[in-house]
Amino acid sequence: MKKAICLFSGGLDSTVCLYLARSQQYETVALSIEYGQRHYKEVSKAQVLARALQVRHYFASLSMPWKGSSLLDDKVRLPQNRDLPILSKEIPSTYVPGRNSAFLALAMSCAETENADAIFFGANALDYSGYPDCRPDYLEAFVRAMLLGTKIGIEGKKIEIQTPLLHLSKKDIVLLGKKLDVPFEKTWSCYAGEDKPCGVCDACVLRAKGFQEAGIPDPLLS
Amino acid sequence: MKKAICLFSGGLDSTVCLYLARSQQYETVALSIEYGQRHYKEVSKAQVLARALQVRHYFASLSMPWKGSSLLDDKVRLPQNRDLPILSKEIPSTYVPGRNSAFLALAMSCAETENADAIFFGANALDYSGYPDCRPDYLEAFVRAMLLGTKIGIEGKKIEIQTPLLHLSKKDIVLLGKKLDVPFEKTWSCYAGEDKPCGVCDACVLRAKGFQEAGIPDPLLS
Repeated sequence: MKKAICLFSGGLDSTVCLYLARSQQYETVALSIEYGQRHYKEVSKAQVLARALQVRHYFASLSMPWKGSSLLDDKVRLPQNRDLPILSKEIPSTYVPGRNSAFLALAMSCAETENADAIFFGANALDYSGYPDCRPDYLEAFVRAMLLGTKIGIEGKKIEIQTPLLHLSKKDIVLLGKKLDVPFEKTWSCYAGEDKPCGVCDACVLRAKGFQEAGIPDPLLS
Repeated sequence: MKKAICLFSGGLDSTVCLYLARSQQYETVALSIEYGQRHYKEVSKAQVLARALQVRHYFASLSMPWKGSSLLDDKVRLPQNRDLPILSKEIPSTYVPGRNSAFLALAMSCAETENADAIFFGANALDYSGYPDCRPDYLEAFVRAMLLGTKIGIEGKKIEIQTPLLHLSKKDIVLLGKKLDVPFEKTWSCYAGEDKPCGVCDACVLRAKGFQEAGIPDPLLS
């Protein structure tokens, strides 16, 4: 049986990704990373989901001198009520410098330790094209580079990076999740990380748009 | 003034690297990473050195489900009394899967946050060619990839990765350190991390060889 490390935040995208890996007969190992995000809540959601699925779940914790990102610093206001044309054109204040490179490097470490065949990463280039570290050319180059620097890479083993959501719209992700029986009510997207989704941050706006276009009510809002 | 992030473990190589960056008129910012290494002692050495130099010093802490490496697990025996022909041919048990990718990704994050021009990394390909993540082709590919995934990279700014020790022998590193007035007695290399250097781990063996060939006594041993 093939094995996959799934970067798993407990958000909508990474949860659909994890379910997809399982549906493709991978033995899945989840990796969640705590990095000072204000919506740390997503990690506890991830824990509940992984337990329900009986998936092995690693946690990594990262303490870094990042500053200035509104995703980490609750003194910086989260962008609110932005619509898609704006979203796709600029790098938002929620961007955390080099975060996905760190995440992928840690996932690759995990994959090497676990002798895994693939990394599943729920990056999405369509809605989030403002994030430089979700771009396909970056992802390809990064994995190629990492294989050069790992024991397994040198020994000729390939670890694939699978980004099955890269070119899907949020609507398509919701529809795929429904097909895979993803318990949407157990996922978390809102950047604010309060008791209820704020409804106005980029993550909430995109999630709402996805559910609406898919014609499915978001159980988190009912 | 140009600014450099220096990956700084407090070991011989990274200390020489830090002094070199300063001698090249970079404003230097040190980044030390705690990752469960058994020779955690090196990080406190780094702290003392950075304070003495009045260099800004960031610490990152990394908690990862790594296992099996003798550098992390004191139940796994460190290699002892190996000589160079062996050292350069196999990947040693002290190899930590993907460690340098994680380190470089974190340094790049720091560089982006700090708007730095360069990362100084004391990797050495000659003595440590057993480590896949010290190989020049890997390092080049990795930095190229990371720039594709960062805001600064997309905006056209270059962050150089400087690996000035990559092709130096340990002897040359010691001689360079002497020229730069590196306080060798404040550095730490031994993987065992006890009160005194063990003298038999790979790090001790290489360090001793370097000092011996440079014709300089190692103050840590006197």
